[in-house]
Amino acid sequence: MTLLDGKHIASLIRAELKQQVDQLLADGHRAPKLAVVIVGHNPASETYVNNKIKACAEVGIQAEKVALEADITEADLLQEVQRLNQDPSVDGFIVQLPLPEHINETTILSAIDYRKDVDGLTPENVGRTVQGLPSLVSATPKGIRELLARYNIPTAGRHVVVIGRSNIVGKPVAMLLMQKPYLSLPGMSAASLGDATVTICHSKTQDLAAICRTADIIIVAAGSPKLLTADMVKPGATIIDVGINRVMDGYRLVGDVDFDAVAPKAAYITPVPGGVGPMTIVSLLQNTLQAYQNHKS
Amino acid sequence: MTLLDGKHIASLIRAELKQQVDQLLADGHRAPKLAVVIVGHNPASETYVNNKIKACAEVGIQAEKVALEADITEADLLQEVQRLNQDPSVDGFIVQLPLPEHINETTILSAIDYRKDVDGLTPENVGRTVQGLPSLVSATPKGIRELLARYNIPTAGRHVVVIGRSNIVGKPVAMLLMQKPYLSLPGMSAASLGDATVTICHSKTQDLAAICRTADIIIVAAGSPKLLTADMVKPGATIIDVGINRVMDGYRLVGDVDFDAVAPKAAYITPVPGGVGPMTIVSLLQNTLQAYQNHKS
Repeated sequence: MTLLDGKHIASLIRAELKQQVDQLLADGHRAPKLAVVIVGHNPASETYVNNKIKACAEVGIQAEKVALEADITEADLLQEVQRLNQDPSVDGFIVQLPLPEHINETTILSAIDYRKDVDGLTPENVGRTVQGLPSLVSATPKGIRELLARYNIPTAGRHVVVIGRSNIVGKPVAMLLMQKPYLSLPGMSAASLGDATVTICHSKTQDLAAICRTADIIIVAAGSPKLLTADMVKPGATIIDVGINRVMDGYRLVGDVDFDAVAPKAAYITPVPGGVGPMTIVSLLQNTLQAYQNHKS
Repeated sequence: MTLLDGKHIASLIRAELKQQVDQLLADGHRAPKLAVVIVGHNPASETYVNNKIKACAEVGIQAEKVALEADITEADLLQEVQRLNQDPSVDGFIVQLPLPEHINETTILSAIDYRKDVDGLTPENVGRTVQGLPSLVSATPKGIRELLARYNIPTAGRHVVVIGRSNIVGKPVAMLLMQKPYLSLPGMSAASLGDATVTICHSKTQDLAAICRTADIIIVAAGSPKLLTADMVKPGATIIDVGINRVMDGYRLVGDVDFDAVAPKAAYITPVPGGVGPMTIVSLLQNTLQAYQNHKS
């Protein structure tokens, strides 16, 4: 069994990104710039935003925090989005969720210019990803694909079972892995990028265990602690655990996979924490650099 | 075995649409209006366009043919798209494909305002469909869903195998049938609208036959005559054949299903022609009425 060490891979990618940004500066270009919009003072959101800004600093991406009060109107927030859409010094930006209840998240997200949508959550970017057009892919699916690629785990012709159908993980990762290998990533062989046979399972699926036992790769993003047990896994399968569940004591994080029982049967498995999580922030940095390059050219 | 009679269902839906349009006129509203852009004189395209215009007339939808010469520049065609986007008398429009080689189809399709994109092919509409937001769903997937619903064939919790991953059929029909039943259609029970476990298969899939044998519903959109044979079908399955293949004599159409051998094992099956095909044009009429209603309100 090999551990898919997201923390290590993310640090390698950050080093690569730093090198690329340093080269841009050495060539006389400006640094890429990310803006992060945060509305209100939700402590969890502030932690996430600060981590993202810190990650930018580490690789040389400029980051601007746009802090707005919780009583901002939807119209004023929309105007802020338009300002960022038009600001030529901003390559990409994100609006940290959740937003206050009086603001419609869909309205705000849909207003982001897809070319600056480094979270990859606008309908335009999702549609472009589905259609195989150049797009900014949302962070977690992109991180999963990168993790598979860095460990040279092929997906072509293999059966991938995705458990969960969320807009931010299940649906986009299914689309990414089943499609023709349109997009190439640095350090990734085309064969590992797609062409999988993909089954999408969810709360209404009957006999999930039997379906999982036919899978070469299982991606669990259901938000249900220890949902995937050893009897559901074919020996030699690859297991990607997207779950982050805080257990009773409030401090420990557990995934959607019963790690101790499943790991001995798996060929590859992600730990929680330290698997998919670190890949997610690094995807945001990669998308910011991609938006910068599209923008510059 | 019950034949899924798309020709009959399409005629029922046309009668319903005519009644709705008549009611709109009786209430003093204007008729819905579709514009159909055709570039050049491809005979197959002209036939398709004329059939669409005829279908509009039958239900009282106004149709305008915008015929452009094959040597139009991409910039001029884009300008025509912008004109139709802005024309308040046009509720929806389509650009008949294929376009001449000097014009980038993706550029043109992406420029269509998604609210008028009654073919449901813009990235914005595809992304909205994936995310479960109100959208105009592309014609063939919408027709398949409607056909299943009209025959009260439930999809919730059932295993649907989709063969083919095209942008116009395979990917969107997979997304529609697996997602939560967000959208309600007239005459359709919510339970029949989604919630399926969906597997997407394609040319790179290994052991397609074994996967198909686990399916309750098989949707074949591979463009490969008689791809689905009797040994690949579980007794009692529902078979949807999207294939339209012209065979050697040049006149006969055959589907992707070996109909004569598969039909005796199936609970429900679509004929070719007369199955999915007639549902596709009727979807365009439904989308035009939906665009009119969104536009009016």
